[in-house]
Amino acid sequence: MGLSVTEVELPPIFCPLESAIHPRVRDIEARAEEWVRASGMGTDEELAWVVASHSADFFARFAPTADADRVLATSLWVYWGFGFDDARCDNGPLSTDPGAFGALAGQVQRAVEAPSAVSDAEPSYIPALKDIVNRFRAMGGPVQLRRFAIAHRAWLSGVTWQIGNAARGHMPDLDEYVAMRLLSAGGEPTFAMLELATGLEVPGREMDRPVVRALTEMAILIAALDNDRHSLRKELARGHTDQNIYGVLMRHQDLSLQEAVDAATRLRDRVMLRFLDVAERVRPQGGVELRSYLDGLRYGVRGNAEWGLRVPRYLSLGHVPGGLDDTPLEWAERPADDDRSPLGLPTVAWWWDEGLLYG
Amino acid sequence: MGLSVTEVELPPIFCPLESAIHPRVRDIEARAEEWVRASGMGTDEELAWVVASHSADFFARFAPTADADRVLATSLWVYWGFGFDDARCDNGPLSTDPGAFGALAGQVQRAVEAPSAVSDAEPSYIPALKDIVNRFRAMGGPVQLRRFAIAHRAWLSGVTWQIGNAARGHMPDLDEYVAMRLLSAGGEPTFAMLELATGLEVPGREMDRPVVRALTEMAILIAALDNDRHSLRKELARGHTDQNIYGVLMRHQDLSLQEAVDAATRLRDRVMLRFLDVAERVRPQGGVELRSYLDGLRYGVRGNAEWGLRVPRYLSLGHVPGGLDDTPLEWAERPADDDRSPLGLPTVAWWWDEGLLYG
Repeated sequence: MGLSVTEVELPPIFCPLESAIHPRVRDIEARAEEWVRASGMGTDEELAWVVASHSADFFARFAPTADADRVLATSLWVYWGFGFDDARCDNGPLSTDPGAFGALAGQVQRAVEAPSAVSDAEPSYIPALKDIVNRFRAMGGPVQLRRFAIAHRAWLSGVTWQIGNAARGHMPDLDEYVAMRLLSAGGEPTFAMLELATGLEVPGREMDRPVVRALTEMAILIAALDNDRHSLRKELARGHTDQNIYGVLMRHQDLSLQEAVDAATRLRDRVMLRFLDVAERVRPQGGVELRSYLDGLRYGVRGNAEWGLRVPRYLSLGHVPGGLDDTPLEWAERPADDDRSPLGLPTVAWWWDEGLLYG
Repeated sequence: MGLSVTEVELPPIFCPLESAIHPRVRDIEARAEEWVRASGMGTDEELAWVVASHSADFFARFAPTADADRVLATSLWVYWGFGFDDARCDNGPLSTDPGAFGALAGQVQRAVEAPSAVSDAEPSYIPALKDIVNRFRAMGGPVQLRRFAIAHRAWLSGVTWQIGNAARGHMPDLDEYVAMRLLSAGGEPTFAMLELATGLEVPGREMDRPVVRALTEMAILIAALDNDRHSLRKELARGHTDQNIYGVLMRHQDLSLQEAVDAATRLRDRVMLRFLDVAERVRPQGGVELRSYLDGLRYGVRGNAEWGLRVPRYLSLGHVPGGLDDTPLEWAERPADDDRSPLGLPTVAWWWDEGLLYG
């Protein structure tokens, strides 16, 4: 991008959502790290980076009141996802070979869905994933399992899309980027694990309402854009020009990096305002399971922002990850843009349909 | 494959399932053809082949007792799917470019999920698909819509996988082929439309039971292998060496074409036996909606075989498709193999788990 991070000002994040973390997070994290180190998912250095994702700290913020064993199992998938993402999606030969990645994604997904599936396509990651999904089978019902599997496929389809763009040197426009990022960010499986963690299954007639899908997607987009922000420093330091919101805005709207940062912040804050409005109006319509799920979306958006501001995944620039930063965080008092009209992006314009609340 | 179809004997199909077709099929087909011709989905010659898929005849066998308007709307998707498959998946520049296809698949899928999405990525097929999905929205509830959307993504992920293999000249082994074909065959969205056609929504706690997923997958695999059989004549005539069950068996098990045909028939008949056994045992456990869905799987497997034996898609070798063949069909009296033990394929071995019936 031709700019260093010292030349760009990242404004504080607007996030008027309550902060929470599971009281047994340190114990859960210690058990998770033990699992990662025994998982066979890579070299010691690779595993050090997987551990440094502090995924237990991350997901303990999504499900602060859930049973600790359930938070452990769901956290393991987050470690797994970061490891797989770093090793197979963002780096390495598959990261620019959509054909090979598509076949791998098919085998990985089958390992989630078919208990008997085995594959030598990915001997380090598939067995670890099967161990995690077996834990889910022991603790969740078939509807929750199916929702997780579906969300997992959605994520992999987004990664395939992203890798296809990278291989062709195609920088998507903003509308395509948002549609792709809603999938590739990994928010679908992460939020699908809320029910596995709490054990509270939302009835289909509520979960599949377009307005609940819209809220889930809004939460995913806010978190994904926050992650684009968190990783900007690292991307710039590494000279990456990956597909991210800033690259998209700079390329297609002819903005400087600072202008792109400001435009992305405004866009993200407008989605946050819509999320707050709609969640508040939907919550009283729902049963206890839906209310718990919507709380999880709120905890997740906040928790992702807090985790991302402190995790060495985004902050450490060397080969050895540092620990969790504990500087007090500064938050924005108000949104960068309080325009409550729909974003001019067809792929998400329906989030602003008034009829959504009544469907 | 180095052999002509005159040198291979295709045994009759073993299919002890009742045959049925919607009484108003000709009327539905006429209305569907009118829609196709006005759809803008291609040139006149391309549209002639879309019409010649006789998709209304096809889906009228899946839902013989459903409301005619619903059978029309669901049939339209089948026409659309055949058109898209021929134009974008099996032929043309995207058929060997997994990166470009993955991006297109993402936009197509978003058109199913987001009512406001627009895309110029595919100006002939995306608007037609949106018209179909809008009909589904008018006639189905959110759970049915969501199930269709999920199934649609599964199909596209399978096509992406197949295209990735084709681009790399990779002929999958049998286990990978089965896992891929379960998706790429299009059976997921086709069977997901059963509920849209009948209006009977299966509760999630029944639909997501592993045994119901297994039955759905078995029905898909039987129909997919029957379609491999139906299209063999055409593939051989065109000199195609696409990924199909015969190519897989010839390559990886060192079989002649005739041996591969026989081995594929035995494999398919063993799946049919398991399907019959399990469906009979699950049916009495289910509510009226699940029983209707299971009936739809049976009608669909039978209907697909009848349609495939007669449709010019598989029979016509020239540039102008002929009409529906009406020769009486001959069926096998017994399975080519009555071995009721699990297939030695990890990806589907779990279909034979006894615990499946009790989960």
